Amino acid sequence: MITSGLTQAVVVIARSLRARGIEAIAIEDPCFGFHREAIVNAGLRVVPIAVDQDGLDVAELLSHNVGAVLVAPAHSYPTGEVMSTLRRTALISWAQNNDGLIIEDDYDAEFRYDRSPIGAIQGLAPERVAYAGCASKTLTPALRLGWLALPGWLVGDAVLQKLLDDMGSTVLEQLALARFIESGGFARHLRRVRPSYRRRRDTALACIATELPDAVPTGVAAGLHVYLELPRSCDETALVVAAREQNLIVEGASWHWSVPSAARPALIIGYGAISEPAIRSGLTLLGSIYAQLAH
Amino acid sequence: MITSGLTQAVVVIARSLRARGIEAIAIEDPCFGFHREAIVNAGLRVVPIAVDQDGLDVAELLSHNVGAVLVAPAHSYPTGEVMSTLRRTALISWAQNNDGLIIEDDYDAEFRYDRSPIGAIQGLAPERVAYAGCASKTLTPALRLGWLALPGWLVGDAVLQKLLDDMGSTVLEQLALARFIESGGFARHLRRVRPSYRRRRDTALACIATELPDAVPTGVAAGLHVYLELPRSCDETALVVAAREQNLIVEGASWHWSVPSAARPALIIGYGAISEPAIRSGLTLLGSIYAQLAH
Repeated sequence: MITSGLTQAVVVIARSLRARGIEAIAIEDPCFGFHREAIVNAGLRVVPIAVDQDGLDVAELLSHNVGAVLVAPAHSYPTGEVMSTLRRTALISWAQNNDGLIIEDDYDAEFRYDRSPIGAIQGLAPERVAYAGCASKTLTPALRLGWLALPGWLVGDAVLQKLLDDMGSTVLEQLALARFIESGGFARHLRRVRPSYRRRRDTALACIATELPDAVPTGVAAGLHVYLELPRSCDETALVVAAREQNLIVEGASWHWSVPSAARPALIIGYGAISEPAIRSGLTLLGSIYAQLAH
Repeated sequence: MITSGLTQAVVVIARSLRARGIEAIAIEDPCFGFHREAIVNAGLRVVPIAVDQDGLDVAELLSHNVGAVLVAPAHSYPTGEVMSTLRRTALISWAQNNDGLIIEDDYDAEFRYDRSPIGAIQGLAPERVAYAGCASKTLTPALRLGWLALPGWLVGDAVLQKLLDDMGSTVLEQLALARFIESGGFARHLRRVRPSYRRRRDTALACIATELPDAVPTGVAAGLHVYLELPRSCDETALVVAAREQNLIVEGASWHWSVPSAARPALIIGYGAISEPAIRSGLTLLGSIYAQLAH
């Protein structure tokens, strides 16, 4: 099923589950804040489950009564962790034993730099996983094209929710993307941009090590951003505001956490659309702003 | 605000109103059945209000306690009536006296054949009208582009609902449509297709008069379809099924009514995308199928 980006994929599933009487969906903590708000807006409760270096804490999930869990096993947003094999197995067991649904946001699966990407959970348990992907990171978010591979029992409900939300997604761009994939152009595009993004990531990490030595990057070598943990003494909001005053746009991470006030200060540094010289000058400027605030 | 077609415009407003505590929206009876279902899916009740030759019966609306009304004053779907000036004035009074919202579906305003189109209600009471239009009839529904002109007090809520539903509409096609409008191409397109659609309508009506003499077309000279009232003795479903068996696709009208079983049998005949010879042969075939069923 084609959706308007990944957000609508999540929303369509949330509404489908709500119509079946499911009242709560577990989410990663932290997770992409918009997904959390979109699920709440669809009339469900969210139950935040901690993410550590092995991904979502499935043991914590077991202690809650939820009908579904939204998880990005390939690359948890924003901290960048990858779900371990043990956790994946445990997650599938949870779904099978509890009649639960795993909503798999295959976030950044295309942009793993240090090894081949790990396969999706969906292939291991297709009747318990709703697989969601989109073209926003690989091509552009302007396309608003996402997709869902659904368990058979969920297809009718999801199609109905999509129909009643917007009656379908733009057809011209679906056809163009299908042609682009079939022709091999999409695969060529990924092969071309992957090393470029990797160099940008390496540049960012090298620059952070020298210009922002207090910051600790988390997560694996993947994706289009770096998550930077900062010392607890740092005022995240003040740093973001001071950077914007110098036309440097960085995102504070706290709103992606279920309890922003309890989150450790952190920044999300996007490098996907920025040249290496601009990455260096931007991070050098950020380092000097940080140093000024810290003293 | 740009939406994914008119359906999402209606849904975004319905959700915005629901979040403000409004529980019911009045709709035309009959109306486009998908809109009715989409509003119910968004968690609101619908209150059907009869449409007669002067459009929505505003006196009936006054007897209900609703926060908003969805109406297509330029061309009520599917029966094709235009709201009279008296009714328009009464509708605006209702909105002003009851803190109500008129959701104006400016359906088919571009395709009036017998006179200049009547202006939208929105211009008369912009703070009480949410104006909705789309490119589905003028260009193609494949674009999924609609738009809303909203009262100031509703903008923030509607933008939030749109954001949490899909984070925005396809940007490339918005830019292409904007260029098409600015360049004058859109106006030229309308000038070119209007006489063509008018000829198709005239052809359809002439053919109906000879091939389906029992059928009564309703509504003004506008739009891309004819609404055909049939004798009460006619079995609408059987006629639609028999036509499809001969590869002739006509739509039964009853599901657009709030109580389909009480609706007078009727067909919706689309002529927008069909050549005049095909309109003639299709209606001739329909006439013979009708005659067979009637005897």
